[in-house]
Amino acid sequence: MAPSFQTAVAADLPLSLSDTIVALSTPPGAGAIALVRLSGPQAIAITDEVFAGKRLAEQPGHTLHYGTLRDGAQVLDEVVVSLYRGPHSYTREDVVEISTHGSDYIVRQVLALLLRHGARLAEAGEFTKRAFLHGALDLAQAEAVADLIAADSALSHQVALRQMRGGFSRELRELRGQLVHFAALLELELDFGEEDVEFADRTGLVVLLQEVQALVRRLLRSFELGNVIKNGVTTVIAGRPNAGKSTLLNALLNEDRAIVSEIAGTTRDLIEDEVSIEGIRFRFVDTAGLRDTTDVVEALGVERTRQRVQQAALVVYLFDITTTSLAELQAEIESLNLPAGVGVLAVGNKLDLASEDQTTPFQARPDTLLLAAGPGIGIEELRASLLARVRLDGLDQTGASTIVTNLRHARSLEQADRHLDAVLVGLSTNGGTELLAADLRHALGALGQITGEISSDDLLTSIFTQFCIGK
Amino acid sequence: MAPSFQTAVAADLPLSLSDTIVALSTPPGAGAIALVRLSGPQAIAITDEVFAGKRLAEQPGHTLHYGTLRDGAQVLDEVVVSLYRGPHSYTREDVVEISTHGSDYIVRQVLALLLRHGARLAEAGEFTKRAFLHGALDLAQAEAVADLIAADSALSHQVALRQMRGGFSRELRELRGQLVHFAALLELELDFGEEDVEFADRTGLVVLLQEVQALVRRLLRSFELGNVIKNGVTTVIAGRPNAGKSTLLNALLNEDRAIVSEIAGTTRDLIEDEVSIEGIRFRFVDTAGLRDTTDVVEALGVERTRQRVQQAALVVYLFDITTTSLAELQAEIESLNLPAGVGVLAVGNKLDLASEDQTTPFQARPDTLLLAAGPGIGIEELRASLLARVRLDGLDQTGASTIVTNLRHARSLEQADRHLDAVLVGLSTNGGTELLAADLRHALGALGQITGEISSDDLLTSIFTQFCIGK
Repeated sequence: MAPSFQTAVAADLPLSLSDTIVALSTPPGAGAIALVRLSGPQAIAITDEVFAGKRLAEQPGHTLHYGTLRDGAQVLDEVVVSLYRGPHSYTREDVVEISTHGSDYIVRQVLALLLRHGARLAEAGEFTKRAFLHGALDLAQAEAVADLIAADSALSHQVALRQMRGGFSRELRELRGQLVHFAALLELELDFGEEDVEFADRTGLVVLLQEVQALVRRLLRSFELGNVIKNGVTTVIAGRPNAGKSTLLNALLNEDRAIVSEIAGTTRDLIEDEVSIEGIRFRFVDTAGLRDTTDVVEALGVERTRQRVQQAALVVYLFDITTTSLAELQAEIESLNLPAGVGVLAVGNKLDLASEDQTTPFQARPDTLLLAAGPGIGIEELRASLLARVRLDGLDQTGASTIVTNLRHARSLEQADRHLDAVLVGLSTNGGTELLAADLRHALGALGQITGEISSDDLLTSIFTQFCIGK
Repeated sequence: MAPSFQTAVAADLPLSLSDTIVALSTPPGAGAIALVRLSGPQAIAITDEVFAGKRLAEQPGHTLHYGTLRDGAQVLDEVVVSLYRGPHSYTREDVVEISTHGSDYIVRQVLALLLRHGARLAEAGEFTKRAFLHGALDLAQAEAVADLIAADSALSHQVALRQMRGGFSRELRELRGQLVHFAALLELELDFGEEDVEFADRTGLVVLLQEVQALVRRLLRSFELGNVIKNGVTTVIAGRPNAGKSTLLNALLNEDRAIVSEIAGTTRDLIEDEVSIEGIRFRFVDTAGLRDTTDVVEALGVERTRQRVQQAALVVYLFDITTTSLAELQAEIESLNLPAGVGVLAVGNKLDLASEDQTTPFQARPDTLLLAAGPGIGIEELRASLLARVRLDGLDQTGASTIVTNLRHARSLEQADRHLDAVLVGLSTNGGTELLAADLRHALGALGQITGEISSDDLLTSIFTQFCIGK
């Protein structure tokens, strides 16, 4: 196959693409079928040595072959072999997948047999790493493969799939292409440095840079939502003892996860559970009631609640309408000392028991919802309100098509943003071409790291070791 | 395909072979790859409805196809589809295997999608059941598929694989063929009953029946070993407190599984662990020391030890050479009241601390081994001695080629044996042909149940529900 930019990079790296790697590619444990996957120049030859059936070396790619795996005279299993010939395979190399009976014992024997015949055990993510090194995927796409496997909601699945299929990468490549054009003109000016020529039209370039930066910033903003989609929204439920926090959590979860009792101070441990509202995972954290207490264990719980509230993305402050005044509610929320950016939703509980005099003061308060957790009145409104808070922060503004979910990508985008700033400042102050070119190279570098057009062995190792073995 | 005897039987059973079934065929959980398998008349058509790639209906069997799975406009995953056209498939029906990314979320979505398009969820073992109903496997072979997946030692793996590949079935079919020939001749005599003719040569037939019965009995004897191979040998380690039972168990297991202390009576719970010696699994059960005790919890442990000893296949009676006389050892072993057939091996511990006067009396005793568990002296000899006890009971005598491991098969063989006895008795006492023919039919029925030539829906259900889903 034609050498790609990635393979050119790979040539500098201490990687043995000449090895043939092997791993179990399905989850371990008993099942109907287990898949053992080989990739590399000897994948077909090694399999031929242990496979009794058709000679694979003579078969076309994308075919299936029934036969037996043999260790000398001993039959290990009846198997079906899937044959892929590079570059028409996941890794772009010759790939053989051996479908065995799903027994750990058989898998161990088959792996040991293939190792004896010259394969080596694949490292975590090494199949996908090879796909990247051979140019089948860029780095952002490869990272999305791991996200796709980990995805457990409709939104995280769709975002990961879109990224794997290149949606995110296409936008980045376009950005970077524009910058490369700009950089080339600046480098040309440097070559003619003495003559004081300007190949690059400064005014037009400012417009272009601002366009590029706007795109970088839009992607950066999408990371807030991307992170929410990937990791969920940590939502702390806080409030006085006996406000009904555990009951509210149960109502949201539709199950009896927390111990509910009428004795104040029942909940001492932080209880976490997740509920998916239209594809967004809310990780609800129930907390010990906030009050001064003499019970040592409960006091520890209160302390952890205060810490946890500081780390939350969203706080649901629950109060008992029948025993709390508007002034007390304001004071209690203020005493949480929430950092800027952490949203707080006041939720008045026991609506079913409250008089009109008690409910009226709260009805005018913004970000306040009244409900009855016990009988389940107003729970749907709470769900909608929680969802609205996340949606308003991102999805509707950025559109779902390009959402950054990866912290590494966000960091690179931040770097690119800073360097673009520097270029823009340099242009507005008529800075030297040499400095402009350097800043632009840094911006290009930051963007190139996302898709892997610029990568290092350390970076690749840190990315692919997070994969499972066999992918 | 040609209708086989099994499909003829199947025609009477309330089974919907017209359905297209689907299941996850790889173990659940995150992994690189998950396989979703469809089988049935609509397998290809249903996949074509949701697969964007080549049109599968137009592709030949035993081919692989890359594409995307789509739920309407939404892409669910990039997949590879394996296409098998019946009868060249596991079930003999059209089979499609969809290789998706190994995410539980994706698998759930894909299964839901295929169900909406007309497939139904497969029951446990239903793929293999269809393979049986279409004559791809006989029943004994189908049962061996589950044994093969569960096999966790070299011997159990080889025995299951050989049975799945038909070794066991071939021998049974041959037996049954001979009997069918005999039965046909007897039925012929019944047709000519009034004329008092004998088509079947009684003397030759006695020889034939004895031959058949010898084979049935050899298979029955092999079940003792087969059971050991499949389920392991329960080996109880008993003895006085502080004889070193836990230390011996640790030495055998090469790990610190049991809590070892110098305080007598440390072990109260029965501790089980397994060690595989040349493919035979020994399930070692450590026990509370046998002594009269006032500690209630320890007393319960002693009682459980006595019960357990009665259920063991083998008892290792451990004694301290430095504190036990030969007479005491004899008395203590006798007091175990072991049932007939349970072997007992006396093992003298603390050889490293014993004087020659102390060791000499035991050296002449049969079934006695002296060792030092702490420093690990004599452990290998103990392993060899344990193995010899199993081997002598079966493997060397029966040969490894036909070993019955399945309790159902053993029960059927016992029935066949009884009915063959009745036929032989009938022949020797010149019993009526009608009785002879009836007994022979029963013997034929018992043997036919093993391979499924005679089967019922209840039998099939009880067999295949023990399989995992997707097999």
